[in-house]
Amino acid sequence: MITVAEMKTAAETKITAEQFAIFGGVPLFSEPLHVGQPVLSDREQLLADFDAVMQSGQLTNHGPKVREFESTVACMTSVRHCIATCNATIALQIAARAMGLTGEVIMPAFTFIATAHAMEWIGLTPVFADVDPATHTLDADSAEACITSRTSAILPVHLWGHVCRPEQFASMCKRHGLRLLFDSSHAFGCQSNGVSTGAFGDAEVFSFHATKFIHAFEGGAIMTNDDQLAERCRRLRAFGISGLTEVSDVGTNGKMHELSAAAGLRSIKSMPAILTANTDNRRAYADICDTVSGLSLTPVPRGNFSNNQYLVFTLDEHRFGLSRDQLVSILRAEGVFARSYFAPGCHRSEPYRSDSTGRHVPVPLPVSEQLLNSVLQLPTGMAVSVGQIRQIGRLIASLHRTCHQIQRLWSLCDGRVKYHHADAAAPRNLTPPVPAFREAG
Amino acid sequence: MITVAEMKTAAETKITAEQFAIFGGVPLFSEPLHVGQPVLSDREQLLADFDAVMQSGQLTNHGPKVREFESTVACMTSVRHCIATCNATIALQIAARAMGLTGEVIMPAFTFIATAHAMEWIGLTPVFADVDPATHTLDADSAEACITSRTSAILPVHLWGHVCRPEQFASMCKRHGLRLLFDSSHAFGCQSNGVSTGAFGDAEVFSFHATKFIHAFEGGAIMTNDDQLAERCRRLRAFGISGLTEVSDVGTNGKMHELSAAAGLRSIKSMPAILTANTDNRRAYADICDTVSGLSLTPVPRGNFSNNQYLVFTLDEHRFGLSRDQLVSILRAEGVFARSYFAPGCHRSEPYRSDSTGRHVPVPLPVSEQLLNSVLQLPTGMAVSVGQIRQIGRLIASLHRTCHQIQRLWSLCDGRVKYHHADAAAPRNLTPPVPAFREAG
Repeated sequence: MITVAEMKTAAETKITAEQFAIFGGVPLFSEPLHVGQPVLSDREQLLADFDAVMQSGQLTNHGPKVREFESTVACMTSVRHCIATCNATIALQIAARAMGLTGEVIMPAFTFIATAHAMEWIGLTPVFADVDPATHTLDADSAEACITSRTSAILPVHLWGHVCRPEQFASMCKRHGLRLLFDSSHAFGCQSNGVSTGAFGDAEVFSFHATKFIHAFEGGAIMTNDDQLAERCRRLRAFGISGLTEVSDVGTNGKMHELSAAAGLRSIKSMPAILTANTDNRRAYADICDTVSGLSLTPVPRGNFSNNQYLVFTLDEHRFGLSRDQLVSILRAEGVFARSYFAPGCHRSEPYRSDSTGRHVPVPLPVSEQLLNSVLQLPTGMAVSVGQIRQIGRLIASLHRTCHQIQRLWSLCDGRVKYHHADAAAPRNLTPPVPAFREAG
Repeated sequence: MITVAEMKTAAETKITAEQFAIFGGVPLFSEPLHVGQPVLSDREQLLADFDAVMQSGQLTNHGPKVREFESTVACMTSVRHCIATCNATIALQIAARAMGLTGEVIMPAFTFIATAHAMEWIGLTPVFADVDPATHTLDADSAEACITSRTSAILPVHLWGHVCRPEQFASMCKRHGLRLLFDSSHAFGCQSNGVSTGAFGDAEVFSFHATKFIHAFEGGAIMTNDDQLAERCRRLRAFGISGLTEVSDVGTNGKMHELSAAAGLRSIKSMPAILTANTDNRRAYADICDTVSGLSLTPVPRGNFSNNQYLVFTLDEHRFGLSRDQLVSILRAEGVFARSYFAPGCHRSEPYRSDSTGRHVPVPLPVSEQLLNSVLQLPTGMAVSVGQIRQIGRLIASLHRTCHQIQRLWSLCDGRVKYHHADAAAPRNLTPPVPAFREAG
């Protein structure tokens, strides 16, 4: 009988394919490591803030905490207006309506579906362009090729916090008479050439979802330097009511409540600590990529300052010896909850893929297609230590070394491989599912 | 010099018009009394719940507290499905989209603008029908007169918690092949002939806004007994994602987060105490109406059980001697923060009033017009005692007695009357505004 310590050592030093958890070995981590586990570093103080909110008697409807959150975010980013919302999807809807967008909106195909759906929800048509292979953000030439007489705006996404070339898009929009809205969900706290996100285009939208760099449990914000647009966004956030009771616009309810704002403010105070952890993690993963063939950490674009919240890798299947989906499955079995992103791509999701008019895919999307099959993220955030990242690194190096053996065993075992139920590589009708790890909040 | 005690006595026994605060007298209440002040009776326990949420690490994305809130609400109402949302406006949008509504949706003109805007936001056309003078809810004949080939649904509102005749609307919808969605924002905890709200029509939408009977700071829910509709609403609430990553529908972000759900659950536990207070307040106001000519408390419809959260009055200007807007202004100056509702009416609000096609007003709306000028609500909720209501009653009785004197002084003083900045009767360019009382949350 082997001891727990021996089992742990065995898990640390996997030499043969059979030792990997997906084939029945002992998982490297008994408690899974996640991508983007929410951070709540000042629980006691946050509870005191919640108590103060409750004692104030004002729980929502643009209360003092929301106003403080807005002025703090505006001040930090040097942007004139921050309009806090219940989440970023509703913020995108409000911003698009406040700008008076119509017809088609050009955006990357390689983004979270919410970017597209926010437009489609309010009757606009997403048109998908390709992305730049280096930054994964909207490719300007591809976007320009999509412009038609029906286009009213371009909606680039600062994916992974990589700031899309704001000047290039601004001049393109000016040339074509289009509005420019940035989906900045990933990019709070990022900069391009010393200018903070929030300041670009006609407006930007931040997300403060639980998994984001700064979070309010759920939350979002519209940022703009345009006074009139800000005023209109504020109205649209609260039913289109202007003044006391007069209704001057079609609005929705996009209000953030006081508890969320209190959490957002406390989260902002933790920014330096989170940024330090994120940056340390990036460095640790960069070291791993230096030694493992085929695994690359997507670099921060030149001139960018990054919040390093998303540490995104591309896997070259041929050089590494395993596919991205295989690697994700193997890592998850080990308790390393890696994630692929955005498969199958917005253009292949409903309702866009079923659109017989083809209006959604006017240009080829080779880079997006390639990224959809090669991108993954590895556990990071304050819940993951540099030591654990090094363990992950040794595991990935072992996988690379034993890739041929793994491929043989994989083809022999297929169907009996211990997939996590969330694995992309798992068969569709997998029963019974392997018990799920707790998902990130 | 008069003492504070003498001043208080003076405020209690206003005999001449000059003694009323609007003309410079001492206000009856130094701390204003509100309509619908949020209730947080178990602050300590709620803080413990918030702490448990934070310790769980799952802050949103359909976590355990949201699931518990949903099953609790479903169980209490004996409805198969509760789909909790960030607010009721987003819930209405999701329900309408999940039902596949198109074209026109018939609703009352006398409702909060969110009912109409939720439909307009997603490209549907609100069509306004009149309401019943006794219950203030959608008049079935008026609604039926609005049905055209473009109509896809009827959207009655259980206004003030008065349950619209569900069987009548169900049979009308069946006859015309329409869907039936109830805006039940006011009506959580109400019943019609022993059946709880939530169970009627194809679906109902509750609001859990801070000012509602039961609240989650901000929140809403879609209730339905239709399994397929429920499944679709769940998907649409979270970006249209089905299964793990597959996107099968156009969705939005309508998620409620864990803090809201925890607050909602704690609020439900306070229901008996809130109901008792509301019912006591109703009784106290009913006694006042028995003695004051022209002021009537809108009765709970026959067969209804009411949460009594909204105690709504109509004022007969000729019998009482003052207009509704005058009464509201005078009461506010006294610290009695009375509210009128829904002026100028959905049909007179943008964008509906400017619709040159007239599609929004196909039938006359005499009852709505009359209610818009005569309805008011007086302070209630757990923050208002029966003793304070009796004080309000004596004040209103004095106003009625001195109405001729008040009218004379009003016409002499107009422009120098001490309006509250939120008064409907106040001149538009009132400067400097009288400092605002703190608004209800």
